[in-house]
Amino acid sequence: MSEKGFTRFNRKAIKVDDALQSLLPFVSEIEAESVGIMEAIGRRLSQDIQTPHPIPHFRRSGYDGYAVRSEDLQNATRQEPVYLNLVDNIPCGEVPSVSLKEGETARIMTGAMAPDEADTVVMLEATDQVEDNGKTFVKFTKPVKSGANITPIGEETQQGEVLLNKGKDIDSGDMAVLSSLGFDNVPVYKKPKVAVLSTGTELLDVSEPLEPGKIRNSNTYMLAAQIGKSGGEPILIGKFPDDVDVAKERINNLLHDDEIDIIVTTGGVSVGDYDIMTDIFLNWEGHTLFNKIMMRPGSVTTAGVFNGKLLFGLSGNPGACFVGFELFAKPVIDRMIDGAGEHPKITALLEEDYLKVNAFSRFVRGRYEVKEGKVWTRPVGLDQSSALLSMKDANCLIVIPPTKTGLKAGEQVEVILL
Amino acid sequence: MSEKGFTRFNRKAIKVDDALQSLLPFVSEIEAESVGIMEAIGRRLSQDIQTPHPIPHFRRSGYDGYAVRSEDLQNATRQEPVYLNLVDNIPCGEVPSVSLKEGETARIMTGAMAPDEADTVVMLEATDQVEDNGKTFVKFTKPVKSGANITPIGEETQQGEVLLNKGKDIDSGDMAVLSSLGFDNVPVYKKPKVAVLSTGTELLDVSEPLEPGKIRNSNTYMLAAQIGKSGGEPILIGKFPDDVDVAKERINNLLHDDEIDIIVTTGGVSVGDYDIMTDIFLNWEGHTLFNKIMMRPGSVTTAGVFNGKLLFGLSGNPGACFVGFELFAKPVIDRMIDGAGEHPKITALLEEDYLKVNAFSRFVRGRYEVKEGKVWTRPVGLDQSSALLSMKDANCLIVIPPTKTGLKAGEQVEVILL
Repeated sequence: MSEKGFTRFNRKAIKVDDALQSLLPFVSEIEAESVGIMEAIGRRLSQDIQTPHPIPHFRRSGYDGYAVRSEDLQNATRQEPVYLNLVDNIPCGEVPSVSLKEGETARIMTGAMAPDEADTVVMLEATDQVEDNGKTFVKFTKPVKSGANITPIGEETQQGEVLLNKGKDIDSGDMAVLSSLGFDNVPVYKKPKVAVLSTGTELLDVSEPLEPGKIRNSNTYMLAAQIGKSGGEPILIGKFPDDVDVAKERINNLLHDDEIDIIVTTGGVSVGDYDIMTDIFLNWEGHTLFNKIMMRPGSVTTAGVFNGKLLFGLSGNPGACFVGFELFAKPVIDRMIDGAGEHPKITALLEEDYLKVNAFSRFVRGRYEVKEGKVWTRPVGLDQSSALLSMKDANCLIVIPPTKTGLKAGEQVEVILL
Repeated sequence: MSEKGFTRFNRKAIKVDDALQSLLPFVSEIEAESVGIMEAIGRRLSQDIQTPHPIPHFRRSGYDGYAVRSEDLQNATRQEPVYLNLVDNIPCGEVPSVSLKEGETARIMTGAMAPDEADTVVMLEATDQVEDNGKTFVKFTKPVKSGANITPIGEETQQGEVLLNKGKDIDSGDMAVLSSLGFDNVPVYKKPKVAVLSTGTELLDVSEPLEPGKIRNSNTYMLAAQIGKSGGEPILIGKFPDDVDVAKERINNLLHDDEIDIIVTTGGVSVGDYDIMTDIFLNWEGHTLFNKIMMRPGSVTTAGVFNGKLLFGLSGNPGACFVGFELFAKPVIDRMIDGAGEHPKITALLEEDYLKVNAFSRFVRGRYEVKEGKVWTRPVGLDQSSALLSMKDANCLIVIPPTKTGLKAGEQVEVILL
């Protein structure tokens, strides 16, 4: 009999949301580090990014053409063109070399800095150059609007504005912002280190030949990918046989290892004689938070905490292991790096009948797809906790609430996007 | 005057789809390599993956309980239970040690191998164990259905079936499949090596302080992230000033470099005096495929081919560079590793009016989101090719066809998912 009255056979099933909530007090934000900008791709910002300058930070020409003072052209017509004296040539990256006086113009490139006195750029195609007496003039045949074709300072953003928020995953658009603001090093969260252990005498290494009754250790590699996608760094500890003492020692070492932030085990959480994780969770130094959840698959998903460190006991069944990770471990890892936690949920329409009767909520591996502005979803593969193949095509979990009649095609369901 | 009649000012705009089609003859599948399974996460399969054995490959118990021959229990009732002699104990990973004869049963764990003679597993909870005269018997109180609680060989898949298709991006579900099939090394496509060069005297390095008229080189880093997301490996060549001879030599070296698969430049493709990529594309050893496209932004997007190697001249404007890459370079990189090429497109509903008048199709950086089963989309940020900030929030490109009136909120638009 353990502290909370858990016994091997007499587990108290709690709601999915209550299980998640019980974990949250033990989630704390992980520390940050600074990485080179190229290493920042796909990482998560640990600070708001403010711009130290307005964008653009100079008055920028939007076209190749001529910078002018619009007042000089107010009477220009095709019949009576205005000729301005060409006094400067401003390529990108250079500053104007002279001030524009009345009657003067400067050749300017797209993206170049407009002279202070010019309020407009006239496109090259609308002009002609004329040589006269050793001087160059530019011919304009119509008036122009003040401000046209020059992007004012700060049009995109003012100095000091927060352009990227803490907690954002850095993608290509963010890379453009970070590099243009001069962040050659970028503040990002460290990746939470998640130790992965698989239990089971039946497990073979990936490289071992198959034997009757044995299967290869596949949950470890599946979890490694799930952890990486959640923003964590998988630390593969390996598999161990169904020996409580061995398992206890290994897990104990990890619980005391400052380099490990979270521990995830798979297998051994059921009620069989060899379910060693069940034994460990009944009798350990830590505090068991839950060991049964009102859901399928993965009802035996277990979690506890020791010294602020979370230990997850996921099912050894691949489908149940997958779902247990996504519903409980992913939100924890994601929150450690300032994420929203749970996957986004949307409402979708069932593409086909789902007639299975449930006492618990069922999280069915499925696919969703958009057709003519509507979102449709359907289960993929075999809907059993032991099924290995249904994850490979899933991009969502379809939430089937407890039902005595099943659901019909066309009914609305909640869908968790993976 | 170049081979196809292109001149600096007289460019012939072609349709977006025609531009893309002109690239495809020069796309060839890249070679494969074998990587360790942990390095395979996120890579793309270069072969179909067939299963060398059925899954499961043995008759697997679905519960902890007792393996029985169902015929032995056909007369069992609560009043007249049947007692079977316990002759074996089968944990996971072991093979049954004896054959079950009439009147015999074996203790069996979830996931363990059922004895050949047993056609059913009875859950532990429905039984009792009784000792009698030094022998152990198990008490059963009702008949069971033949086949219940044992997963037959090959229920998930038969030997030889293709479980994962060539061209699939390897995610967590695929990792489960690959590891369970014994792929400690995984055949994946090499990542196409994409050289990135930025042109422009105005460009500062990310680490340099800002100067009037100059901007930091941000396209390079944006493109690096875009290339990575497309499945390529960015090779950053750096920036070079607006000097045709320097640029020509660098590009020429890359065109002759067998280690480089694609070259992407940004900047210098317009019609200004310093638009050095325009000069290069007008007079080079390669064949220019297009230098103007009926689209905004990025109408000056240019591409050509030399010796089967594609050279992209993207605009230096961040928005135009982004769109040009996604519409033309991404599909090429993706096809080199057996992908579908273009981004998926869906139909969505405009969340707000879009009243800008277009002669060319406009690809507006936007966001889409699902609300109550419908997909809505709206533009983000400033809709100008020079805008830097509109990419950071975009998850799609909204396709606005040529229109004289603009589009109203609620109208259907095509959306390219990024």
